[in-house]
Amino acid sequence: MKQINLGLCGFGTVGKGVFDVLEKNSNLISLRTGIDFNVKKVLVKNLNKRRNIFSNEIEFTDKIEDIYNDKDIHIVVELIGGVDTAKEIILNSLKNKKSVVTANKAVLATFGYDLAKEAEKNKVDLFFEASVAGGIPIIRVFKETLLSDNIEYFYGILNGTCNYILTEMTDKGLSFNDALKEAQEKGYAESDPTFDIEGIDAAHKLAILMMLAYNIRFDFNNLYVEGISKITDRDIEFANEFGYSIRLLAIAKKKNSSIEGRVHPVLIKKDSILSNIKGVYNAIYVKSEFLGPSLYYGKGAGRYPTANSVVADIVDAGLHLINRAKNMKPVFTIKGSRIKKYKIKDINKLKSKYYLRFSVADMPGVLSKISGILGKNNISIEAVIQKGRVKNMDLPVYIVMITHESLERDIKKAIKIINNLTICKDETFFMRIEDFNG
Amino acid sequence: MKQINLGLCGFGTVGKGVFDVLEKNSNLISLRTGIDFNVKKVLVKNLNKRRNIFSNEIEFTDKIEDIYNDKDIHIVVELIGGVDTAKEIILNSLKNKKSVVTANKAVLATFGYDLAKEAEKNKVDLFFEASVAGGIPIIRVFKETLLSDNIEYFYGILNGTCNYILTEMTDKGLSFNDALKEAQEKGYAESDPTFDIEGIDAAHKLAILMMLAYNIRFDFNNLYVEGISKITDRDIEFANEFGYSIRLLAIAKKKNSSIEGRVHPVLIKKDSILSNIKGVYNAIYVKSEFLGPSLYYGKGAGRYPTANSVVADIVDAGLHLINRAKNMKPVFTIKGSRIKKYKIKDINKLKSKYYLRFSVADMPGVLSKISGILGKNNISIEAVIQKGRVKNMDLPVYIVMITHESLERDIKKAIKIINNLTICKDETFFMRIEDFNG
Repeated sequence: MKQINLGLCGFGTVGKGVFDVLEKNSNLISLRTGIDFNVKKVLVKNLNKRRNIFSNEIEFTDKIEDIYNDKDIHIVVELIGGVDTAKEIILNSLKNKKSVVTANKAVLATFGYDLAKEAEKNKVDLFFEASVAGGIPIIRVFKETLLSDNIEYFYGILNGTCNYILTEMTDKGLSFNDALKEAQEKGYAESDPTFDIEGIDAAHKLAILMMLAYNIRFDFNNLYVEGISKITDRDIEFANEFGYSIRLLAIAKKKNSSIEGRVHPVLIKKDSILSNIKGVYNAIYVKSEFLGPSLYYGKGAGRYPTANSVVADIVDAGLHLINRAKNMKPVFTIKGSRIKKYKIKDINKLKSKYYLRFSVADMPGVLSKISGILGKNNISIEAVIQKGRVKNMDLPVYIVMITHESLERDIKKAIKIINNLTICKDETFFMRIEDFNG
Repeated sequence: MKQINLGLCGFGTVGKGVFDVLEKNSNLISLRTGIDFNVKKVLVKNLNKRRNIFSNEIEFTDKIEDIYNDKDIHIVVELIGGVDTAKEIILNSLKNKKSVVTANKAVLATFGYDLAKEAEKNKVDLFFEASVAGGIPIIRVFKETLLSDNIEYFYGILNGTCNYILTEMTDKGLSFNDALKEAQEKGYAESDPTFDIEGIDAAHKLAILMMLAYNIRFDFNNLYVEGISKITDRDIEFANEFGYSIRLLAIAKKKNSSIEGRVHPVLIKKDSILSNIKGVYNAIYVKSEFLGPSLYYGKGAGRYPTANSVVADIVDAGLHLINRAKNMKPVFTIKGSRIKKYKIKDINKLKSKYYLRFSVADMPGVLSKISGILGKNNISIEAVIQKGRVKNMDLPVYIVMITHESLERDIKKAIKIINNLTICKDETFFMRIEDFNG
């Protein structure tokens, strides 16, 4: 039995989960791999905190250099989150020829390119299955299953918090705020939920998947990112009347040399497979040239689903070390030095169908006025809902439309004109529609 | 650039597909792997058949020993199907220290254990992603993602032909025979469809997944296998009335030391995720201890989805050869020599809910008679549908029931008694129900 020593950075939700899986299933893992994975050192913030570990062999430290300078540690497992310290740990570990397993999407989305080059230079592994969609093996799918395939597009439900909120709004008719509050009470949303609900978390994951799929790097700020906080329960109802449900999707598409990357709420057909992904679950729907459509579904967060992905990476890194296999797959499917700098398609050049919600005065001629402006801006209408008049003439009424495929720039231009009309009582709200058949 | 030479056995649907993928995406593959995968020799049945290949470097042969004895071939790709010749090719290739990639479920389900031992003895790879669920990377999921996890159960829609037929029966109200005919016309079913519709194909795939999940071997005939040919359009309707749809599932469950393995039609809740898998698509729903529930969905057959899986295996085998990585993962998650012989749980000991359809004479007292016999055999009833009387008293009427959890032995015993009653006009038909929440 060969031994591989691990330096575990972070002993919170995921860190403790990794420890538990390695301990509970150590027999199964060594039976299947011939390797004894041994947690040698654990990096924690507070050395004085009492921990429920019955082992004298594990050393705790609060100094990061104790991990990456330890010559007996073969694999560093980075689970502290955040960016700067995590990056320092990963980079120094790679420089010291240790393989690294991380769940840190923020670091990878912003510095993945530099880290990949460092890993490849030192011929060690940098694995990150847990960084995207928690327990779902989507990184392996992109690096192994789709290695020889051309990914045309993919749609990801990559943020469980948003999916939970949208599902609750749909199934229970809750307002956004009530659904968010419920998510916070159940531990599915942070007390400051900005990172999740504004789409940033999903965008980090999208960036990683796009690097794998298209072998490009780009300024993270190039990705178009929009959250779900402006969606009202009325939007959910209107979408439903048109035959759609609403999901926060991370979308990437490649057509010839143009690549789209964007995170925003999307109307998708109610009977589509992604529309059936409910609650905190994640799913990625991929359309590639040879494999065709495929879907991967599971828990996108949580102690043990995430820990399971981390341990799978630890096992593969360990097997590579034991086998001295130094020329396996590049970190992001092609070598870092070959990853091309790329400019993601400007969202204003997007062609899409749109959902438009106008808040207007309840008076004659309004629909004609609005549709006239849309027409002049090359936007044609597929369907309209205008709800019956209300008694109080001061209250705005909603006119809701589904457009045919239009240019985003035209949509924004028309909305700007309409928002300036006196009949317009509130900012016009719009969302994009994806009519895919998955 | 390193070169890996392939011996391609079979040049039919999948074989030609593999050739196409390797040729069309050779740049992408070598960019990502640093390897030039070169088809050196192709084994065909008929050397005189004209083939649309513009290469003088590929040698065609109709002798299997030309493949496995060729010292310049590094990886043998077995895609001829069938059992005996395929097994001979695989075994001799492994003996000659060539890695093997195959899509052959029949060979693996029956001789997988011997082949695994031979591969491990010679420290070469035996990969078979394409053997189960075509393009879906379920073998990788079992060997990598779930390596350190405990699989509690899994449900597989593993036969596209059956799923297509059942979907058409459900959505269009077709009879089994009409749906089968349609499947044959569309090329989704063979002219002799026995292998698919009687569940044997799904059982081969189940056997492979069970070896991976539970590290056991067993007599293939131990698996309980029942097809879909006895299901009528009326059963689809009755199931629908009870809130269920019908799918052919491959099921494995482990509880303590007891392992179930079975293929048969199952009633599943209409809103379950597997109930939404339609047409020729395949899906596997897995419940494991740490990852929790997960689902993998895609095309289970077809030239390019299957070829894509084969090429992914070729790439991994090639990388192992280039890296001289001889101690990677065992063929079936643990070494062949450690795979335990196991006796699958007898179907008669199954505890399940059941769907029962009785064809009975249209006369008073029948329901009381039947429910009395069920009660005496420890079977309690959850729901009943008895359709209104017909005019012609000679025609049988249907009584359909959903039972609470019962023992299969009791169900069969009660049915036998009921079938012998004079009021019983036709064989009683039953199916099992799985009320899982996926």
